Amino acid sequence: MTMTMSTALLTDHYELTMLQAALRSGAAHRRAVFEVFARHLPGGRRYGVVAGTGRVLDELERFRFGDDELTYLRERGVVDEETLAFLADYRFSGNIYGYREGDLYFPASPIMVVEGTFAEAVLLETVTLSILNHDCAIASAASRMTNAACGRPLIEMGSRRTHEAAAVAAARAAYIAGFASTSNLMAGRLYGVPTAGTAAHAFTLLHDSERAAFEAQIASLGPETTLLVDTYDVPAAVRTAVELAGDKLGAVRIDSGDLAAAAQEVREQLDALGAFDTRILVTSDLDEYAIAALAAAPVDGYGVGTSLVTGSGVPTAALVYKLVARETATGKLEAVAKRSVGKPSRGGRKEAYRLLDEHGHAETELITTGDHSPEGGIPLLHELVRDGEVVGREPLTAARERHAAAVATLPQEALHLGRGYAAIPTEFA
Amino acid sequence: MTMTMSTALLTDHYELTMLQAALRSGAAHRRAVFEVFARHLPGGRRYGVVAGTGRVLDELERFRFGDDELTYLRERGVVDEETLAFLADYRFSGNIYGYREGDLYFPASPIMVVEGTFAEAVLLETVTLSILNHDCAIASAASRMTNAACGRPLIEMGSRRTHEAAAVAAARAAYIAGFASTSNLMAGRLYGVPTAGTAAHAFTLLHDSERAAFEAQIASLGPETTLLVDTYDVPAAVRTAVELAGDKLGAVRIDSGDLAAAAQEVREQLDALGAFDTRILVTSDLDEYAIAALAAAPVDGYGVGTSLVTGSGVPTAALVYKLVARETATGKLEAVAKRSVGKPSRGGRKEAYRLLDEHGHAETELITTGDHSPEGGIPLLHELVRDGEVVGREPLTAARERHAAAVATLPQEALHLGRGYAAIPTEFA
Repeated sequence: MTMTMSTALLTDHYELTMLQAALRSGAAHRRAVFEVFARHLPGGRRYGVVAGTGRVLDELERFRFGDDELTYLRERGVVDEETLAFLADYRFSGNIYGYREGDLYFPASPIMVVEGTFAEAVLLETVTLSILNHDCAIASAASRMTNAACGRPLIEMGSRRTHEAAAVAAARAAYIAGFASTSNLMAGRLYGVPTAGTAAHAFTLLHDSERAAFEAQIASLGPETTLLVDTYDVPAAVRTAVELAGDKLGAVRIDSGDLAAAAQEVREQLDALGAFDTRILVTSDLDEYAIAALAAAPVDGYGVGTSLVTGSGVPTAALVYKLVARETATGKLEAVAKRSVGKPSRGGRKEAYRLLDEHGHAETELITTGDHSPEGGIPLLHELVRDGEVVGREPLTAARERHAAAVATLPQEALHLGRGYAAIPTEFA
Repeated sequence: MTMTMSTALLTDHYELTMLQAALRSGAAHRRAVFEVFARHLPGGRRYGVVAGTGRVLDELERFRFGDDELTYLRERGVVDEETLAFLADYRFSGNIYGYREGDLYFPASPIMVVEGTFAEAVLLETVTLSILNHDCAIASAASRMTNAACGRPLIEMGSRRTHEAAAVAAARAAYIAGFASTSNLMAGRLYGVPTAGTAAHAFTLLHDSERAAFEAQIASLGPETTLLVDTYDVPAAVRTAVELAGDKLGAVRIDSGDLAAAAQEVREQLDALGAFDTRILVTSDLDEYAIAALAAAPVDGYGVGTSLVTGSGVPTAALVYKLVARETATGKLEAVAKRSVGKPSRGGRKEAYRLLDEHGHAETELITTGDHSPEGGIPLLHELVRDGEVVGREPLTAARERHAAAVATLPQEALHLGRGYAAIPTEFA
């Protein structure tokens, strides 16, 4: 979406006024460490899923103040000339470490660590949080749906229910968390997510009869297509569908009514008509609870829209970007923390490890501020940016595989859909 | 965000497969009417606010299949060569009518009507709904917050809590619905929304003391700036702030704790120090309920983040895009409607009027399918696109003024924050 445009104005006004004041005081050039973490998992979730890191790296490379951006800032008087000069030359030259996409996170997990001067690191706050708060929320919801589907494929089809660019990121995040495909073509184009879809009710209504619509679709897409059977009367549509496509009919889609009952009836009808291999796809306001409730129904795949792209009740991940260390006047890097009521922060640059038991099950998320690395602990922070250069790119499929493997390490109760505590405790050392 | 890029792949896969099948059957060229409406107002809301129309017009103009898009579709085998040839020449050549931005809508209000051939109109479904479902959800939430604030200014500062491009649209929608400003610089750059902001906790932590941070900020931004006073200890920070800026201090911001109690204490302290004109701004997970609860507190402005950009519990507006009329084989335009269980549609091309009583209060949302226009009814559908050309652009300030005027026509109970029914009934004629 923003492939060619600067991302530098995806920034809160106060990042620039802070920069200006810090340039004036001289503190702008102090070394600083910011960390991204969640104080808690929202909505009683048991775990969070990291997603968006790859997008942060993409947008970091386009985070440049060009003439267009500088002119706007000058004309509106957002910052002074000294600050504009700094921005014109701005390149992030520091280091970024992060949890890998698809991995899990828990309260206080430092899923991203940004090291640089205050000036260069503070500017990245807004866009970094925008990406991670959105993508982690979607991936975390998607992971619950993947678990609830017990191996049946899920199609992401929520583009129409969220901002047009958020939709593309949502499809990407859902794919990381186990969805099989998306309806969104831009997600296919930009990220290689497999795309899927055949027809909507409008296609049936367009034609002079449902039969004519089905004939047209089969002629164009082949009998292996998916026919939407609930525009008028489901049993009549299924009869027509099998009459036209025979037992080669790929699938039927049901998008309204009591999906469990409808799927049962349609399965019986399909079998009675000899269409044993025709699959049944269901859509219509599904979320992880509705998916789980359909576990006993003869359903072969789910299309999920609204709930996926809105994070199934948790549309944002509550991640914050906090200064945890800064250089003092004497040149020493010092831990800092605020003490705001209810929102204290924990100072010092962190490392993070996951500790597994002898069966390979996750036991503890260990956050350290010292030098010691725990024996057998899996280090969770990986190098993403070194001296301003992106070094941590990886294919989306790697994130998808990591997610499946990481979920497999969780204790069984972590997959319960009800509200609860974090699946494993976070400990500090 | 997508200023230079094609928006044509912000489309669901099935729009293109429908197109392919309809080109094959010949029905693609039939005239068709699609309408955007909400079956109900989500979350027990009393009214919805139209926003995003201007963005639909912008993205329509960039809805072109260029080489990049066509190559992707060809390589992935999404559609056949005949369809690719159609897409290469695609230009929407029909008409679009819509409710104006800032206006209100109710269940069944046809907030957008798209007339064209089936082929050209069906392709616009996904991106149109993405924009309107997002922007209407945000504007509808923002309107409740504006009402709750009773004239005190609201700053939109939720960019970090939503997708980076959704954030820009959210700032725009909030401005339409009465917010005074935004933290988001891209919204300033693209849409002229006023921007605001001064400093975060990181700025205080960066310096060797809170005093040094305040001094630096005042030196750079002047004593009229807003100082953030809750990094460590609020009374100490307020004392330091006034000591440094005197009675010229513009404002203090409180971002944690019990905001009502803190505002009361800070007001007393400011007054005791002679800083009678120093304003108090509060932030920290505010929504319309929290804003209303602060009505009696000495608060001069609110910063709203998460709740605004997530629609305050309603992150999407439940708008659908439905075929309501199509040309038959004999060339006649005929009303069509599906009969899906729980999701029936209402056939026929609509007009819409708002009926006011003698005091200028809204009484009825009247939806007609015939020719008659009710006496004194205010027509709600305006021409936006004529024969493919955008003719309905207007400045954002016009939408903002329209919104304020439209809310003023609502019955008083429409402004209640609790769950309820639509503020006025929808009638069909």
